Amino acid sequence: MSKIACVLTNMFEDSEYTSPKEEYENGGHELMVIGSKAGDTVEGKNGEAKVKIDLGIDDVNPEDFDALFIPGGFSPDILRADDRFVTFAKHFVLKDKPIFAICHGPQLLITADVLRGRKVTGFKSIHVDLKLAGANLFDEEVVVCGNLVTSRTPDDLPAFNRESAKLL
Amino acid sequence: MSKIACVLTNMFEDSEYTSPKEEYENGGHELMVIGSKAGDTVEGKNGEAKVKIDLGIDDVNPEDFDALFIPGGFSPDILRADDRFVTFAKHFVLKDKPIFAICHGPQLLITADVLRGRKVTGFKSIHVDLKLAGANLFDEEVVVCGNLVTSRTPDDLPAFNRESAKLL
Repeated sequence: MSKIACVLTNMFEDSEYTSPKEEYENGGHELMVIGSKAGDTVEGKNGEAKVKIDLGIDDVNPEDFDALFIPGGFSPDILRADDRFVTFAKHFVLKDKPIFAICHGPQLLITADVLRGRKVTGFKSIHVDLKLAGANLFDEEVVVCGNLVTSRTPDDLPAFNRESAKLL
Repeated sequence: MSKIACVLTNMFEDSEYTSPKEEYENGGHELMVIGSKAGDTVEGKNGEAKVKIDLGIDDVNPEDFDALFIPGGFSPDILRADDRFVTFAKHFVLKDKPIFAICHGPQLLITADVLRGRKVTGFKSIHVDLKLAGANLFDEEVVVCGNLVTSRTPDDLPAFNRESAKLL
């Protein structure tokens, strides 16, 4: 069983949280939602999902987690303005733990400066940022580069879920 | 009197549209809102401003405008996924017309690849993207680089309005 850290705040893309969460939990893994403050409730941008934050970013140690999951929407852009989340994300790259990022999720990894030379994909609007960050961009439903799994949109969720679950 | 093109879609930062609009119109200038489709209504992310789209992007010629205004919030990231808005924005740089971009507004200019060597600022989360796009980043309330005026947040609006109005 893997313990997965999901970093989340408001305006996430609803299905990009709910669908992988279901996949991982059905596989027997544990998913903990990490946000600014434990007990807060954050909402998806489509108003479909409300999620309670399990752990505040100040109260977690990335060493305690086996993998990182970054749902998309506008949540990653809000998170990356907070250096604590950038530092948290960087740990998973440095320790070569699995990272699953969909849609705008890779924005957090751009700010962490950990994408140079990595094969990735992401939402169309961030393609230019990914290339400028030194990543090798592919416009495909899922890109697996070592322990890094990335996808573009909710339409890619079946491929994203399948490939990320393989690394747990 | 200048004719200003404002490119806008949903989830713009409300005050970053309403405050400069008031400033420009008080100065006797005309502001036209350009979106995906004329007649649509778009909403700010704080639910304070609803704006009717004056002109659809397919129905405008950038030659007809004297300046470009890009309010922030998540609107610019949505717009830059649409190549028509990227092409529209590029015109104002190539013709050295005034461009006013606040918060996430410069994201549209990153995608247009027109920031190399330019002095800019923007919302904290996009600082890394601005640097990677070749811009010289300053963490200041307003940065004026020739005809390009940029600011960071709604708190910077007085400086943004003042400096952009000077170029009209």
